[in-house]
Amino acid sequence: MDFEKQLKQNIAEIETMLGRYVPKQTAFPPVIFEAMRYSLFAGGKRLRPMMVLEACKAVGGDAKLAEPFACALEMIHTYSLIHDDLPAMDDDDLRRGKPTNHKQFGEAMAILAGDGLLHQAMEVMANACYQNPCKQTTGAMLAVAKGAGLHGMLTGQVVDVYFEGKPLDEKTLEFIHLHKTAAMIKGALQAGACAGGADEETIVQFGVAGEKIGVAFQILDDILDVTQTTEALGKPAHSDEKNEKNTFVTMYGIEKSKEFAQKLTAEALEIWERMGEQGAFLKALTQYLLQRTY
Amino acid sequence: MDFEKQLKQNIAEIETMLGRYVPKQTAFPPVIFEAMRYSLFAGGKRLRPMMVLEACKAVGGDAKLAEPFACALEMIHTYSLIHDDLPAMDDDDLRRGKPTNHKQFGEAMAILAGDGLLHQAMEVMANACYQNPCKQTTGAMLAVAKGAGLHGMLTGQVVDVYFEGKPLDEKTLEFIHLHKTAAMIKGALQAGACAGGADEETIVQFGVAGEKIGVAFQILDDILDVTQTTEALGKPAHSDEKNEKNTFVTMYGIEKSKEFAQKLTAEALEIWERMGEQGAFLKALTQYLLQRTY
Repeated sequence: MDFEKQLKQNIAEIETMLGRYVPKQTAFPPVIFEAMRYSLFAGGKRLRPMMVLEACKAVGGDAKLAEPFACALEMIHTYSLIHDDLPAMDDDDLRRGKPTNHKQFGEAMAILAGDGLLHQAMEVMANACYQNPCKQTTGAMLAVAKGAGLHGMLTGQVVDVYFEGKPLDEKTLEFIHLHKTAAMIKGALQAGACAGGADEETIVQFGVAGEKIGVAFQILDDILDVTQTTEALGKPAHSDEKNEKNTFVTMYGIEKSKEFAQKLTAEALEIWERMGEQGAFLKALTQYLLQRTY
Repeated sequence: MDFEKQLKQNIAEIETMLGRYVPKQTAFPPVIFEAMRYSLFAGGKRLRPMMVLEACKAVGGDAKLAEPFACALEMIHTYSLIHDDLPAMDDDDLRRGKPTNHKQFGEAMAILAGDGLLHQAMEVMANACYQNPCKQTTGAMLAVAKGAGLHGMLTGQVVDVYFEGKPLDEKTLEFIHLHKTAAMIKGALQAGACAGGADEETIVQFGVAGEKIGVAFQILDDILDVTQTTEALGKPAHSDEKNEKNTFVTMYGIEKSKEFAQKLTAEALEIWERMGEQGAFLKALTQYLLQRTY
């Protein structure tokens, strides 16, 4: 497998899919579609939708069935970034090297663009379930909804905001990472496995892998925020320090944080290895993600 | 039928249902549940969820199946009010006689409380579909999603924001009303009918009734904004004037606006009348809603 080539091809395919679900609107009113697409097509790694599609394939499913859920998950991820960047939240000016959504379209439209992506995610998934009502489609939708919602990403964000500038213990920090980042990766892998028709035990295992990858990914992000420049990151470096955010790095230091991330990575890889050839792409993707330069 | 008594009983039942789907959270972190419940239980008329449940009953369905969709719709309605009130949007301080969500919990938490209600609506509906995957459940979810999303309420809000203080023609004004208010009422009636197992033609008719009721309801709201006091409304009167908003009243005057509302009301009532006894509650509800004092 030529991983790099496959990765590029996957990203291109996902961009095409996303364009179908969030089209350029020539009709009235174009501004909301422009604002949504501005952030949706800002060049992310497409990690989450790729995980949905690849998890579906890994359990022997037809990736076509997973497409709406993959795209919905990416829309939800994008909406969360738009709202996180707002002046009332992190107040960031740059995202992926470009002005943030509210810098470009104003605060009101940025709030609505975020809302719009969450609405569209809901509608795209509901439509897929309506076209083909079964446990596979509705289960995939539920996995995405759970990963994103009040027991997932949203709550991570709430706790993150709530504890800004306050002392944070280890348990709370892990809670934030498990919810803010890991829940969506868990949701992605489980949605894909579910759409692909996996059995209960496999879906649980994919969830465990997702949590480990998600926490490792967030620790890595915290490390990069300290060690990299704004230019290299495409977003403001040292923003955690600026926002007085507690991270694995401020709590344990860089070396210990690296150790944590490496342990979690090894545990996730073990799960893919047990799947043999079918787990090969997910294994390569995990390695690619968690062995970024720091 | 003792309509007033039935109405009170329905409202009480809906409040109980909503409490089940958005419970008091004693676990970590309570703040988001507090903020969500603060607005969700601020004493609305529960018009939209009631329409879901009553539409389901009117077509001979089991209202139990419609409950998650009724509650989801009310959560979405509440989230839209929280975000509409934000400083970047309408910047309102009062809603239903109480401080608006951001006045009470701060802007960051109000954004998240709105997001949280939309997430929870998605999860509650997804779960209902997963428990019972069929055309009735998934169709109900799709009706709610469409009423709320990019071809419904959200777009009405976008256009409303976009045109603030700008000249507005009749077509645009009707577009705003059809989307901002009517789409959710249409979604409510169609979701209920769909959950209740109605045929295609009935679902279409319920949609037509919903649009007429929704536009009439919005015209009435515009009239009341001019003719009533802040105290009587429980929200700031003359806010349209303050925000330089174009409404039916600024465009056609009060008398002509009343005529429009009455014509639409009569057309909607006709649809319920054609259903005979089964349409009786929806007819009474429509009369109650659209014959408010102005």
